Amino acid sequence: MIKGILFDLDDTLYNSSEFVEIARREAVKSMIDAGLNVSFDEAMNILNKIIEDKGSNYGKHFDDLVKSILGRYDPKIITTGIITYHNVKVALLRPYPHTIKTLIELKSMGLKLGVITDGLTIKQWEKLIRLGIHMFFDDVITSEEFGLGKPHLEFFKYGLNRMGLKPEETIYVGDRVDKDIKPAKELGMITVRILKGKYKDMKDEHSDYRINSLQELVDIVKKLKVKDVKKN
Amino acid sequence: MIKGILFDLDDTLYNSSEFVEIARREAVKSMIDAGLNVSFDEAMNILNKIIEDKGSNYGKHFDDLVKSILGRYDPKIITTGIITYHNVKVALLRPYPHTIKTLIELKSMGLKLGVITDGLTIKQWEKLIRLGIHMFFDDVITSEEFGLGKPHLEFFKYGLNRMGLKPEETIYVGDRVDKDIKPAKELGMITVRILKGKYKDMKDEHSDYRINSLQELVDIVKKLKVKDVKKN
Repeated sequence: MIKGILFDLDDTLYNSSEFVEIARREAVKSMIDAGLNVSFDEAMNILNKIIEDKGSNYGKHFDDLVKSILGRYDPKIITTGIITYHNVKVALLRPYPHTIKTLIELKSMGLKLGVITDGLTIKQWEKLIRLGIHMFFDDVITSEEFGLGKPHLEFFKYGLNRMGLKPEETIYVGDRVDKDIKPAKELGMITVRILKGKYKDMKDEHSDYRINSLQELVDIVKKLKVKDVKKN
Repeated sequence: MIKGILFDLDDTLYNSSEFVEIARREAVKSMIDAGLNVSFDEAMNILNKIIEDKGSNYGKHFDDLVKSILGRYDPKIITTGIITYHNVKVALLRPYPHTIKTLIELKSMGLKLGVITDGLTIKQWEKLIRLGIHMFFDDVITSEEFGLGKPHLEFFKYGLNRMGLKPEETIYVGDRVDKDIKPAKELGMITVRILKGKYKDMKDEHSDYRINSLQELVDIVKKLKVKDVKKN
């Protein structure tokens, strides 16, 4: 009996990869315009290396970029990049098509809905609120709160526990095989992989369902409910 | 011979007190709407106490407010407050009337212009860039960079040094008697007090000029230039 759905956030509920890429590129362009004396391609290479080394939640990517190119701290250029990044984020952040309609349908089926996501709590909440979808979720569970992220099974168990759900009565929806689908499957959840974002071509031997759009979830839940009825 | 002008930022170049007050009030209202179970007046009292205790650059005002009312961390409510505060800031941040016109006139008189301000470097730059006036300033000097803020004379000397200006050839423009005008006067700068913001009624025995609008600066500079010519 399906009682709830746990969603990954980035690239599952909105186009994270795409928006982050555009925001970073626009930020770099604005920094060059403000005096960062470097070609766009070289700046992007250096920035991508910094993000790879320090992780995406490091918080000083632009500081390091400017320092590595100019050899000094330049607050005008750094702040210009931060403002542009933020402006683009606010402008582009929106849910995938059908997301809100689908969430309404799933709620009206009596399901508990939760988000379980790697990242900083306030940053992930900011995305949900700006996306205008936070009200649909009974709980939002972040790796910062637990101290350990995906693909650790303990993190998923902690999330299920907070939601009051057992694995076998829970659908898990995510975009990554390695960090989302594999551990969720291992715990006994029903796994749905959404084919979006930069991992959409990842090799996959773990997902129960693959979908191109969130709205396909409604039919999956309906089918699973019919199966339940037949079993009993 | 007047060669440059040093400006304070908050309440001197834009209506800081007013915008911060509105942004905080709107943020508190949005947090109550998001589930912060308290009256508006009580929440504002608690928030003002936190700001008084921790200073305005503390960075966790809303965290502490929510914790002190609900007894727990609630990221939904905190993030709602942060987003509202930020949205109001972006919407309301604009220079005082005549600021840009005045800055253009002062630049065309061949003067060096600088900003010297207490606060975090990136935050103060963000204001200047969002105000659309950062391009007018030859340098922006912050207390975070120097490690010591107003009214320390060393901070003002450091600013003059970075600008390549001597006190007697520099006009200082600020809103506070205690933190701006008194130390600037002590160093030998020509002091102009702008009567704006929450300190506009402060007792003042130190300013050479008092103005209601930045545009009055143009006449003050002209008069000082005439005096110079007569002296020589």
